[in-house]
Amino acid sequence: MRTHYCGIVDESLLDQEVTLCGWVNRRRDHGGVIFVDLRDREGLVQVVFDPDRVEVFTRAERIRSEYVLRVRGRVRRRPEGTVNPDLRTGAIEVLGLELEVLNTAETPPFQLDEDDVGEDTRLRYRYVDLRRPMMQTRLQMRARITATLRRFLEANGFLDIETPMLTKATPEGARDYLVPSRTHPGSFFALPQSPQLFKQLLMMSGLDRYYQIVRCFRDEDLRADRQPEFTQLDIETSFMDEEGIMGLMEQMVRELFAQVLEVPLHDPFPRMTYAEAMHRFGSDKPDLRIPLELVELTDVMGEVDFKVFSGPAKDPHGRVAALRVPGGGALTRKEIEDYTGFVGRYGAKGLAYIKVNDLNAGREGLQSPILKFLPDTVVVEILDRSGAEDGDLIFFGADKARVVNESMGALRVKLGHDRGLVERGWRPLWVVDFPMFELDEKEGRWVALHHPFTAPRAERPEDLSGDPGHLVSRAYDLVLNGTEVGGGSVRIHTMAMQQQVFELLGIKEAEAREKFGFLLDALKYGCPPHGGIAFGLDRLVMLMTGAQSIRDVMAFPKTQTAACPLTQAPAPVEQAQLKELGIRLRPAPGAQKD
Amino acid sequence: MRTHYCGIVDESLLDQEVTLCGWVNRRRDHGGVIFVDLRDREGLVQVVFDPDRVEVFTRAERIRSEYVLRVRGRVRRRPEGTVNPDLRTGAIEVLGLELEVLNTAETPPFQLDEDDVGEDTRLRYRYVDLRRPMMQTRLQMRARITATLRRFLEANGFLDIETPMLTKATPEGARDYLVPSRTHPGSFFALPQSPQLFKQLLMMSGLDRYYQIVRCFRDEDLRADRQPEFTQLDIETSFMDEEGIMGLMEQMVRELFAQVLEVPLHDPFPRMTYAEAMHRFGSDKPDLRIPLELVELTDVMGEVDFKVFSGPAKDPHGRVAALRVPGGGALTRKEIEDYTGFVGRYGAKGLAYIKVNDLNAGREGLQSPILKFLPDTVVVEILDRSGAEDGDLIFFGADKARVVNESMGALRVKLGHDRGLVERGWRPLWVVDFPMFELDEKEGRWVALHHPFTAPRAERPEDLSGDPGHLVSRAYDLVLNGTEVGGGSVRIHTMAMQQQVFELLGIKEAEAREKFGFLLDALKYGCPPHGGIAFGLDRLVMLMTGAQSIRDVMAFPKTQTAACPLTQAPAPVEQAQLKELGIRLRPAPGAQKD
Repeated sequence: MRTHYCGIVDESLLDQEVTLCGWVNRRRDHGGVIFVDLRDREGLVQVVFDPDRVEVFTRAERIRSEYVLRVRGRVRRRPEGTVNPDLRTGAIEVLGLELEVLNTAETPPFQLDEDDVGEDTRLRYRYVDLRRPMMQTRLQMRARITATLRRFLEANGFLDIETPMLTKATPEGARDYLVPSRTHPGSFFALPQSPQLFKQLLMMSGLDRYYQIVRCFRDEDLRADRQPEFTQLDIETSFMDEEGIMGLMEQMVRELFAQVLEVPLHDPFPRMTYAEAMHRFGSDKPDLRIPLELVELTDVMGEVDFKVFSGPAKDPHGRVAALRVPGGGALTRKEIEDYTGFVGRYGAKGLAYIKVNDLNAGREGLQSPILKFLPDTVVVEILDRSGAEDGDLIFFGADKARVVNESMGALRVKLGHDRGLVERGWRPLWVVDFPMFELDEKEGRWVALHHPFTAPRAERPEDLSGDPGHLVSRAYDLVLNGTEVGGGSVRIHTMAMQQQVFELLGIKEAEAREKFGFLLDALKYGCPPHGGIAFGLDRLVMLMTGAQSIRDVMAFPKTQTAACPLTQAPAPVEQAQLKELGIRLRPAPGAQKD
Repeated sequence: MRTHYCGIVDESLLDQEVTLCGWVNRRRDHGGVIFVDLRDREGLVQVVFDPDRVEVFTRAERIRSEYVLRVRGRVRRRPEGTVNPDLRTGAIEVLGLELEVLNTAETPPFQLDEDDVGEDTRLRYRYVDLRRPMMQTRLQMRARITATLRRFLEANGFLDIETPMLTKATPEGARDYLVPSRTHPGSFFALPQSPQLFKQLLMMSGLDRYYQIVRCFRDEDLRADRQPEFTQLDIETSFMDEEGIMGLMEQMVRELFAQVLEVPLHDPFPRMTYAEAMHRFGSDKPDLRIPLELVELTDVMGEVDFKVFSGPAKDPHGRVAALRVPGGGALTRKEIEDYTGFVGRYGAKGLAYIKVNDLNAGREGLQSPILKFLPDTVVVEILDRSGAEDGDLIFFGADKARVVNESMGALRVKLGHDRGLVERGWRPLWVVDFPMFELDEKEGRWVALHHPFTAPRAERPEDLSGDPGHLVSRAYDLVLNGTEVGGGSVRIHTMAMQQQVFELLGIKEAEAREKFGFLLDALKYGCPPHGGIAFGLDRLVMLMTGAQSIRDVMAFPKTQTAACPLTQAPAPVEQAQLKELGIRLRPAPGAQKD
């Protein structure tokens, strides 16, 4: 029906006839002539209808915004002074010779160039919202990203293999979406939180290298930027250790950025242990674009006459750390109060500070409510270690290490953004040497930091002795600009080791049997060494497109209450359907019993 | 961990050292030497452990079937007389220099080369079953097929766009899988039967060309070869008519067969109207490899003195047709009885026949219980039209046209296979000009043959008058060797036409609003002309790999009761989970009320 996309008509087509299809982005009448910006996936082109051509002009008079047109016309140079250098088509226009209105349109619920349309309206009329050039670009880039990833993986011998969606509850620990079975009344499928067990089974099946771009599901209370269904690039390989896997994945990500964004990434990606990341940045996904670091003070605070500091410094689980804010001396009392409130959300009970007015003036040059508690030697250490300069401010965190890390880590990121300290560019980072287990303080038991199939950095099951908190796993996370974009590990591949880990986790044999019996069986029949990784595709695309939310890189996302304003899903269903499934609704709270 | 896959080590590597990883396919001891067939995804290679190398030999003595090994060895020519020309590695062997047992294995539940393992056992130990070379080849070919399709579509400007899995009940009409919503108690998501409405919305969004390889779900009673979840290659494009779409899809399928099977397909694919297909083959998906056709006799049977034929011949909905079986004169009474039983399953009340012994002998040369009812003129027509020869047999079907088509169409296919008449090769066929509607005889109302968004072959809504049974749609099916592998249509793109079609289908405005309100809204705001197609990927892969069941081209299929013997899904869940979802189980029939 057309010869070219609108958005690519340029001077190479001068004096040629083209046939275009697209939407009326805007119609302007000027000097008796009708100008139409015709829009398609590739961009805009200006079409001109001249009153001299009576028939086509008369038709053109009918057209309105968002009408769908087919236009035959001749490409000509725009008159001097009307060239638009921002458009690929900006040097030309198309003189309309023939016009067919393929469809009319009512006035859309919002204008495509409106900025402040509410998200609910955008989602309800998603087919209008997606016509915006920005949304088109994002979805196009998403398709280019997945195509590039697939090509890389296929060139490296990875097979695209599909795993089931109707499956058994998975061990990820979040809440499952359930699907009642009609043929087995009283039983339920679960939608997968990830294909973790299936990809391991594929390795046991000898398929050697697997990948899949796959939908995953978590029925969680939606935080700011989560979705009930999301997409994972899921990868697993046999006969490769963590060095091999990280190397190959790094190559993949580097190729992705080179091909899609034409950006070279650092080669090789830097690596950091979990311990170092927590120590320097209070986070296992540090944003390296922010040139601020935590300063360790636990060792010097034990003896100060200030319980707020000395208490945590003497607690084996405590930590005291400082964060220097360059130029932070200019922060107002109100701003400092706001930051105090901010760290409070992470459990910090306060936010002590010292303003550094004049280093040469000694104590007189410092300004702080807590200065009086700190002896000179300690003050010197603080200034020394933090590298403070005149005009800076130093914040302090002192509490359980977990609270200090979470609050000061978050404060570091917030200050980086608030004070314009975030460097441009891409800062990938591998974080390695994660602990195997962390203590669930409420339940008083050890839980797997990744998942219970992650291999420990130990040769034999009997090496897993001593404090479980000190065991290091063979897991790795890929962090990009402060966002975890991928995470994986070498997996346990022997029965003896898997049983030992279950034991440390307090998972009883019967429970392990019931939940993962098929995996334990499979370990008995010749399981190869294997490992893998999964990337959060939505988040990766969001970073690469510069979108602010993963909802902006999905065609039809859900709202934060897990609903779809477009289709009105979820929706009530017929009683007969429920009956077939062997279920019925509970009466709403307060309603009468049925 | 390795330098090469086992299955690709050949003479080009003579005298070189290789490191291989794989499974022990078989161990044989012969003349004091240990021979191991080591297996990986790419095939087998023979590894030899010599008693002269004491340490590695001693280790090799421990190994058993399905142990996972890592072997360093030197490639050498096999001794004369032991070359295996069937294997790529058959001219060489690897002398084992170093051996590491990466994992042991218990004796697997069945041998990989066992032929008659029950399907339940195969599915329960799928990770053993998938190690069979045949299953490996099929999954590898499946990956190659999807990669080839993706490349073609992306080269043609189609964007891979993901549509939701948690969505609203779709209009396909089969039973939906439901997912209870926790955040909206009493409401349910449906898993998609196809992304039909979303892909149309993407066209209304101006994304122009869409594709997706996507999981779809139908909670149906599983016939021989259906699965509750299956995979569709889903395609939609704007500004293209049926000629354009069929042409492009044909090119895609031709390229697929050329690249994956190295088979050239007929160019162009033949086309046939629905009416012709039913007339000649009694089926809208005729297998053109079978050189048998129905012979029309309705017009000559009206006046015969045999109600079984004259009744249907005079019924406007009736049909009388014959099927010549070359050499069928040799069929025994028992065989004919079996075929009579076979057509009975399709509703046929009998299966009349004539054996043609000697054409030159006139009536004397024919043998049939019904001959006496047929006048000479009719007998001459039967012999003439069917082209019968000595030794043939002619079967007759006479009933409602639907019954004749279904029973004789099925008989044609069965006879083709039973009598070895199926020609080799690939016979693609486009079937076009489908009726818009068919009469639901039970409900006495018209239903859409494809779906209610299929465009009629009519310019304006007011052209849809007269008998709805005579309206032809702009739908097309791609048939390959008697299997429907793809189906699609140009869609309705104006509100007026869509409303007219809903009206003919007896869908009330309120019902249309409730079910497809968002689609009707979208039609108002500038919907482009568009159309598309969907291919059943599992079935296509099954045909291309020569597998007998779609379960053999899926990694983890379900049984015919929609269960997974491997993971034991579906399974009961905790009461607390159901409570969160606002549902509870109905008491089993016969159980006490709760």
